[in-house]
Amino acid sequence: MHSSQIDWSAGDDKTRLLDLIALLDDDCAMTRAEASDPAHLAALAARLPHGTLLDAQADLDRYSRDWSGDHYGRPLAVARPANTAEVATILRYCSAHNVPVVPQGGLTGLVGAAVPEDGRELVISLERMHAVRLLSAIDFTMIVEAGCVLEDAKRAAEAAGCLLPISFGAQGSCRIGGIIATNAGGFNVLHYGMTRARVLGLEVVLADGRIWNGLRRLRKDNRGVDLKQMFIGSEGTLGVVTAAALQLAPKPEQVETALVGLRSTQDAMALYAHMRRASSDLVTAFELLLRDCLDVSLSHDPTLADPLAQICPVYALIELSCGGGIALRDVLENALAGAADLIADGVVAASEAQSARLWRLRETMVECQGNGAPYLRTDVSLPISSIPDFLAETLPHLRERFPSSRALAYGHVGDGNIHLNLIPPPGIDPLARTALLHAAETVIFDGLDRYDGSISAEHGIGRLKQAAFLERIDPVSLSLAQGLKHMLDPGGVLSPGRILPAVEGR
Amino acid sequence: MHSSQIDWSAGDDKTRLLDLIALLDDDCAMTRAEASDPAHLAALAARLPHGTLLDAQADLDRYSRDWSGDHYGRPLAVARPANTAEVATILRYCSAHNVPVVPQGGLTGLVGAAVPEDGRELVISLERMHAVRLLSAIDFTMIVEAGCVLEDAKRAAEAAGCLLPISFGAQGSCRIGGIIATNAGGFNVLHYGMTRARVLGLEVVLADGRIWNGLRRLRKDNRGVDLKQMFIGSEGTLGVVTAAALQLAPKPEQVETALVGLRSTQDAMALYAHMRRASSDLVTAFELLLRDCLDVSLSHDPTLADPLAQICPVYALIELSCGGGIALRDVLENALAGAADLIADGVVAASEAQSARLWRLRETMVECQGNGAPYLRTDVSLPISSIPDFLAETLPHLRERFPSSRALAYGHVGDGNIHLNLIPPPGIDPLARTALLHAAETVIFDGLDRYDGSISAEHGIGRLKQAAFLERIDPVSLSLAQGLKHMLDPGGVLSPGRILPAVEGR
Repeated sequence: MHSSQIDWSAGDDKTRLLDLIALLDDDCAMTRAEASDPAHLAALAARLPHGTLLDAQADLDRYSRDWSGDHYGRPLAVARPANTAEVATILRYCSAHNVPVVPQGGLTGLVGAAVPEDGRELVISLERMHAVRLLSAIDFTMIVEAGCVLEDAKRAAEAAGCLLPISFGAQGSCRIGGIIATNAGGFNVLHYGMTRARVLGLEVVLADGRIWNGLRRLRKDNRGVDLKQMFIGSEGTLGVVTAAALQLAPKPEQVETALVGLRSTQDAMALYAHMRRASSDLVTAFELLLRDCLDVSLSHDPTLADPLAQICPVYALIELSCGGGIALRDVLENALAGAADLIADGVVAASEAQSARLWRLRETMVECQGNGAPYLRTDVSLPISSIPDFLAETLPHLRERFPSSRALAYGHVGDGNIHLNLIPPPGIDPLARTALLHAAETVIFDGLDRYDGSISAEHGIGRLKQAAFLERIDPVSLSLAQGLKHMLDPGGVLSPGRILPAVEGR
Repeated sequence: MHSSQIDWSAGDDKTRLLDLIALLDDDCAMTRAEASDPAHLAALAARLPHGTLLDAQADLDRYSRDWSGDHYGRPLAVARPANTAEVATILRYCSAHNVPVVPQGGLTGLVGAAVPEDGRELVISLERMHAVRLLSAIDFTMIVEAGCVLEDAKRAAEAAGCLLPISFGAQGSCRIGGIIATNAGGFNVLHYGMTRARVLGLEVVLADGRIWNGLRRLRKDNRGVDLKQMFIGSEGTLGVVTAAALQLAPKPEQVETALVGLRSTQDAMALYAHMRRASSDLVTAFELLLRDCLDVSLSHDPTLADPLAQICPVYALIELSCGGGIALRDVLENALAGAADLIADGVVAASEAQSARLWRLRETMVECQGNGAPYLRTDVSLPISSIPDFLAETLPHLRERFPSSRALAYGHVGDGNIHLNLIPPPGIDPLARTALLHAAETVIFDGLDRYDGSISAEHGIGRLKQAAFLERIDPVSLSLAQGLKHMLDPGGVLSPGRILPAVEGR
């Protein structure tokens, strides 16, 4: 037994009384002040198996801060349900008593959606619900609980000769429920789509504690409106995902990598379209790097060498993957040969080690761009063909307005996803830096607006991007989003203030 | 000018008066009897360009009956808007005055969703809105209006070296808005997914006439909940789709086909999983045919020959497709060679003509199975690995209970989609036939329930499958579906009685 768990033993008369009161006033909403009342914790603890609720400060720390460390808050307490029925019990109670809850996965979303705000939100951590309930190598499907770490789910799929094609840096920490609530993207989107494309079915506990069993495993199923879609990407605001049926793919057996130098971003876009056509659409990554980005990597890590004889303004890192039966190296080389007019210089990795070195140029730049100090990270997307114009317009604008800062552009351009970042000058005063980064973000977001781009390609809105989101949303979209929130969470207890502003009293 | 168009000229005082009354009572709902009042047609016609509204009986015929001819009804009138603003005008009026509307595409859905019911529903035909607004071969996207015939959209994509991978028998008649409202499936689902997987953005007119512009063209876009998903597959009950941004794929350049004979459906499922793995997932069709089905084709068309030397209980028709750079015939042959233990006999088509003859065995059976008389058609889906048990249980049950009928099973099993049909004995009394077909459907649907299957894989619910749908839906799903309907169409004017029962007064 953990010393910090709330121990409201069954013999405690006060608990029984609170329990009774709670049962009597299930329809009576409380005020905000009452919601934080620790009496609720006692009543809730009495409804759950012993040890499900944590409230000692030391135990709450790891539920209080996200992966980046930039976002943190204090939970009222942390509930760690072991099954769907316990999640339902928690939500039934919290809805009836107006206690705000925040479902939490691996805390890697980075927009503040799952971080508790101010000591009055109950965190529901799904970490104890991590079972793989079912896996079928013939159906290419698995059913996995929300608290399963993505990497564990991927490993289970691989053991059955299948691929769960959702991959990104945080895959060793993020959890299935979180990636569904975020509709996570990552490296595989170009070929396999976003997380949404993998979801065949969901089990969701609604705000009022009802359990919705939509755990279907069908590729074709048109029985009315597809209800699960509402919950994918809803960032914990519309329901708590407790399990998902996911669609798998055959596991690839071959990977080939090339790095090519190009004269312009226009040529990079033309090469992207050509490579998809000439390789039977086996392109699984197409990453753009401007020369500046390569310079960051090369100057940071002296063991890295300039990969091409020629220095080019633009580079593309290209990866093809497939299963058996195909001479993939030939496919890649022939496809590149067919685009000789676009390519200034290039190299095809001859070995896995060489491929890893090419990827290292990309990864080093991501890791060391800020040099340890805060900088502006954006995660934007555009129609792919607009990327050259957007960059040609926005980069000079940033460089002119912020001459002592460094603007870097790179990304999964095969998905239209660009990270356009700004590194402020070293030693800048923190207040001045905050103002500078905000001004730079405004330049970038305003540029996006002219090209029908998105201010959030992968990470969602949460709290961090809410202001920019609300500035841009049209009234009809806003009323539809509010309508869904009102329909699914009329009391506003689920992750209040994420995506949309909290309703009154929250 | 068409003689049957309603000609309420601008000088008509009665029209002006009605117009005025309509403007005054925009918030006043009318009763069902009033809703059918032809006065509404006058008022509506006055708000639209001359000729937009048709009400002469002769003009209404082609909007009254679906593709199969089995479902028909009489529209109150037919509105043929030329643009989104006109759709908005119609819906604003109809919502305010409680006039039920039914959006209509190519009438190929076959579940009665778009067929008007009883002379009081206004059909909105999108057929005049058929423009391809935008097509980008670099972005692999197009924006196309709802009334565009699927085949025309596919042709436009192909002219740009792209593929719009939605294909089925009705593609020369169905329209983009209809396939989105149905979330249509078809032949390409195994590789490319349902229509939903193609939709990047939508423009929708809401029940109250507001225009929702969600015409995004981004592959990655996590700005809050994905609102467009609500409308995909909603069968005209939640909004009227007026345009869509669709994701295209590179156009395949090679196709290879094989027909193999197998000892059991279990072996067919194992072969399916093997083929996806061994062919780098280039399988674009995997069709199951039981021997009975082949016999139907062979006995109907004497020019068709038994394709294999050996007679097998089960056949699989397998198609692989890809672009350039791959020796696809080798991929197919090597993959089949790797499954020699599963395959009893088989043939790889040596030419396009031979491939067409193999497909002819499948198509002839579909076309002639009913021999011109009514029969039971089902469109069900299951987890792929459950198909053998489901068939082993259900086929003998059908044959025992309906010994003079013929049960046929075939389908896109790569998608878990089976057509399990029952052909009643020739010359059966029509009333007895109706009872027999209903009883057989109950046997099949009850069997599905035991395997978590779907009574509608592709076609939706409409009115035809509503009873079976409502018998099976759980209370939480029903309340979510009703919640969406209430949120988006509180007055119940959009396609009343489709999917869900009509609300009171409808």
